Amino acid sequence: MALRFRRTQVNDDLGLGIKASARRSLNKDGSFNVRRVGLPRFRGYELYHHLITMGWPSFLALLFLGFMVTNALFASLYLGIGMEHFTRPGGMALAERAMDAFFFSAQTLTTVGYGHISPNGFPASALSALESLLGLLSFALATGLLYGRFSRPQACLRFSCQALVAPYREGLGFMFRTVNMRSNQLIEAAVNVTVSLLDPATNTRRYAALPLERATIHLFPSSWTVVHPIYADSPLAGLTEADLLQAKAEFIVLMKAFDDTFSQTIYARTSYTAEEVLWGHRFRPMSAPDPDGLTVVDMAALDAVEPVS
Amino acid sequence: MALRFRRTQVNDDLGLGIKASARRSLNKDGSFNVRRVGLPRFRGYELYHHLITMGWPSFLALLFLGFMVTNALFASLYLGIGMEHFTRPGGMALAERAMDAFFFSAQTLTTVGYGHISPNGFPASALSALESLLGLLSFALATGLLYGRFSRPQACLRFSCQALVAPYREGLGFMFRTVNMRSNQLIEAAVNVTVSLLDPATNTRRYAALPLERATIHLFPSSWTVVHPIYADSPLAGLTEADLLQAKAEFIVLMKAFDDTFSQTIYARTSYTAEEVLWGHRFRPMSAPDPDGLTVVDMAALDAVEPVS
Amino acid sequence: MALRFRRTQVNDDLGLGIKASARRSLNKDGSFNVRRVGLPRFRGYELYHHLITMGWPSFLALLFLGFMVTNALFASLYLGIGMEHFTRPGGMALAERAMDAFFFSAQTLTTVGYGHISPNGFPASALSALESLLGLLSFALATGLLYGRFSRPQACLRFSCQALVAPYREGLGFMFRTVNMRSNQLIEAAVNVTVSLLDPATNTRRYAALPLERATIHLFPSSWTVVHPIYADSPLAGLTEADLLQAKAEFIVLMKAFDDTFSQTIYARTSYTAEEVLWGHRFRPMSAPDPDGLTVVDMAALDAVEPVS
Amino acid sequence: MALRFRRTQVNDDLGLGIKASARRSLNKDGSFNVRRVGLPRFRGYELYHHLITMGWPSFLALLFLGFMVTNALFASLYLGIGMEHFTRPGGMALAERAMDAFFFSAQTLTTVGYGHISPNGFPASALSALESLLGLLSFALATGLLYGRFSRPQACLRFSCQALVAPYREGLGFMFRTVNMRSNQLIEAAVNVTVSLLDPATNTRRYAALPLERATIHLFPSSWTVVHPIYADSPLAGLTEADLLQAKAEFIVLMKAFDDTFSQTIYARTSYTAEEVLWGHRFRPMSAPDPDGLTVVDMAALDAVEPVS
Repeated sequence: MALRFRRTQVNDDLGLGIKASARRSLNKDGSFNVRRVGLPRFRGYELYHHLITMGWPSFLALLFLGFMVTNALFASLYLGIGMEHFTRPGGMALAERAMDAFFFSAQTLTTVGYGHISPNGFPASALSALESLLGLLSFALATGLLYGRFSRPQACLRFSCQALVAPYREGLGFMFRTVNMRSNQLIEAAVNVTVSLLDPATNTRRYAALPLERATIHLFPSSWTVVHPIYADSPLAGLTEADLLQAKAEFIVLMKAFDDTFSQTIYARTSYTAEEVLWGHRFRPMSAPDPDGLTVVDMAALDAVEPVS
Repeated sequence: MALRFRRTQVNDDLGLGIKASARRSLNKDGSFNVRRVGLPRFRGYELYHHLITMGWPSFLALLFLGFMVTNALFASLYLGIGMEHFTRPGGMALAERAMDAFFFSAQTLTTVGYGHISPNGFPASALSALESLLGLLSFALATGLLYGRFSRPQACLRFSCQALVAPYREGLGFMFRTVNMRSNQLIEAAVNVTVSLLDPATNTRRYAALPLERATIHLFPSSWTVVHPIYADSPLAGLTEADLLQAKAEFIVLMKAFDDTFSQTIYARTSYTAEEVLWGHRFRPMSAPDPDGLTVVDMAALDAVEPVS
Repeated sequence: MALRFRRTQVNDDLGLGIKASARRSLNKDGSFNVRRVGLPRFRGYELYHHLITMGWPSFLALLFLGFMVTNALFASLYLGIGMEHFTRPGGMALAERAMDAFFFSAQTLTTVGYGHISPNGFPASALSALESLLGLLSFALATGLLYGRFSRPQACLRFSCQALVAPYREGLGFMFRTVNMRSNQLIEAAVNVTVSLLDPATNTRRYAALPLERATIHLFPSSWTVVHPIYADSPLAGLTEADLLQAKAEFIVLMKAFDDTFSQTIYARTSYTAEEVLWGHRFRPMSAPDPDGLTVVDMAALDAVEPVS
Repeated sequence: MALRFRRTQVNDDLGLGIKASARRSLNKDGSFNVRRVGLPRFRGYELYHHLITMGWPSFLALLFLGFMVTNALFASLYLGIGMEHFTRPGGMALAERAMDAFFFSAQTLTTVGYGHISPNGFPASALSALESLLGLLSFALATGLLYGRFSRPQACLRFSCQALVAPYREGLGFMFRTVNMRSNQLIEAAVNVTVSLLDPATNTRRYAALPLERATIHLFPSSWTVVHPIYADSPLAGLTEADLLQAKAEFIVLMKAFDDTFSQTIYARTSYTAEEVLWGHRFRPMSAPDPDGLTVVDMAALDAVEPVS
């Protein structure tokens, strides 16, 4: 059968454009398949962003490296001045003097300042004053970065790997599940699902918003199954699994919620390609009451499906 | 008489689901009766959340414990190297050396570095440089955590223990009171009240939003009595106290306000079960003018009720 | 003439209640004339709020006091242990020992740790380790508080001292002016003006929102004259200056804007009593072009009015 | 031909006022051509704002200057007390004593406290205790300022230098392009374009909002071409390039987006004068698919235009 398109509303493309592309427009993790070139070589305004979003191992390694390099730099300056300006006995070997210089530098940068080595005379004193100031400022910076890393909004919404086309009421529904992996309470959650289909006539992508059974929930205590009922006026009405594959269908999911532990609006995105839509299965329930009357939600069962008999 | 249900709008269940449960769906403090299992064993992304939301005694105990353990760890490493590398006279007893090592470690971790004990030679110097760096970073972390704990949004809205069904205008009203216990000014407060009733025919819960006399206020100077007038089209119209008890009625209250001291939206939740709804009483006024013309609000009278004659 | 009231919409009282009071409901600075009693004696949750909102002199005095008291406390503990455990020569006078103890304590709390006085033996060492830890945590706290004080949203909107009833188009208008005293750019500003009038029949206050010539502006480059045109359907239509005085009229102003320097919504409130409404005057312009074509705004002319001839 | 104006809606002037001015109302960078005078001489409430928004070189220079001045101040006080109260041998030259005083001060302010110079006696000890406290507080302040500088919202939206009037569908469109120079994901972007035209009859400016092909996008993966189609009812319909120049047309652009890396709403503003509107050209595409199917966006091509044949 021929693909039928709802007349695309101008807003339905979400900002992704209608050019047909060989790749999905959104990756599973919500990032875009876009590469930016022609940026200025030095982008100081990106520094904070990178320091905040890089992984913890890289971040800690960078901190340690910065500490070592600064230490070594000042140590070599101290060596240049001469360790005799640092209340050390003269006549030592270079290795010993270098060690003294390095650890004096470390004790100055961290402001621990034991004092068994201490500067004497103007150049030694001035340089170590500078280093301790630098130490304080670097530390202030590290404090800010650590706080910034911790406090930035992080949704930990997990989406089911597959979306389903499964029986829903008297017909079919397109559906997927989502859970909140964090302990933060999410409230006022809202979701938007848009399907993008390739129009073979024009080789462009057409977008259609999928009306949902419910697009917002006030409370999000456990899991949420988002359902688009495939009624007669649905952009998916009459389409088969093969139709979706042929049209390189992509279901783009935008979710938004308010995290009331940190008073922040958080966003999550994902997408399902036609290959990731399973037909003839339904989700197995994730939650059941326990003897105490508590609702027990099994987060590990997010992806559990069973064939529809 | 038979329970009558308004045709439940799809959105009225708030996200709680329609499964009948032996327990209330929201506890008095707004938490859900949900237990999550199947979570990954290690959840690094929860660490900040726990450190921010745990009680102050636990938090301070954890800080102190971390300090002691780190100190002890480095102290044993210093002992392994030998205290003769720390400008101490040799030939001391183990207990004395251990004490020296522990307090040198403490002086290094806090960067106080008196210097009467100080490292000599590479291993001792390197280890203490590392410890002072660690000290600085831990301290940076503690700074961030303390600020995070203080600055996170905390509503201190208190709700009356009981809701009332009391005379209101020409009929009855379902009502409860709320006060802001903090000095923060709350503005643009909004409230949503939903009743959940057990449908014995299907053993499911049905939800109905309760239209309020006023659902938002611009200013929240003292107390707010939230009223649902039980008009003829109310989901509660015609129900008796026994009906509510039999239907295991639960009134779910969601409140939202803007705290203009900290520019944060805050949320509060609570619920009233049928057992917590008092009939035939009304609230005693909480506020009265004093001789100066100031309005005096007695916060302790939040729960004060009196029988309706 | 008799006062005429528009049928008060339920929402128009803003949350202030309809009880007639001897005082204005909002002070000029936007605070409420409400006193809260019956609060729990100890309110830990208010501590941060007070530390953030108190004046700078009080805050700095408190910091200094805390430093002195902690120092003195530890100093007396050190004296109790005996200064001979602190590498000091024995046989000194009490005053001298007290001074040593106090300054050793200060050097430990600030982690400066010169080391000419340093602890020896378990009790002295343990206590000073504790003090340096406490010093670090207090300092972490002070860092958080300083940042919290600086970064909290602070509108610096100034309102004209008097509101005017002045010629506007073909009739009269109720108007006042506001300026942004800070360099922060304010955008998306919105204002709400409500009049409260005493109803002598019931001795209650009635509220009516005043429709404004424009209630929102996208950009707020300099000053904004907020105008309520007194058309025939205005709650003020036909009222004289004497009517307003007799009805103890109070004009309540709520303003809201987005500060795009700090990405915060800020709020400001004020009120004008009938005594603060000037009739028969108009505002003198605050801004004029300079020779360069720049618009020069004279902030000092906010209150400048001139009689209407 | 005569200029035609749409009946200006009250809200269309954005808050800029209708006075005709010799300059554009918004500069390219979004700032206003307004100078404020009559401000109070001392504005403590502006301090944080300036410290947060000044350039990095100025900020770092100010920090260094503050450090040097404080050091010098305390050094002169120490000299006044006499360096013999600082465990230094007597009989030194002034220069040497000044150097000692200065570096002791530096070691105290940074809390490095080596201890080869240390205070003795009340005045020396008290002053250095004060200095170390001041050092800690300044450092706390610097930490807060550094974090505040880093975390404040900074849109890095770049707009094309020129706007175009170019063929669009069957007619013409007014259009410009914008790109996000940062790695932060922007979502829910919204734009508002208003044209301001000089009315020669009254010598005032009239404003008209320009309806856009799309005023909001959900996702902003690369570049966005904002288009106002010049239909028959457009305020620009029938106008020529000369008309716009004569009417001193200014197109004011307000943009808003949500940065989901930092959970902040960001704003950007710019304007195009008639001189900055290019006729008879169109934008060259900025993006093209690469062999891998990724969309490659050339940020450097933001301003690339080509004549319309």
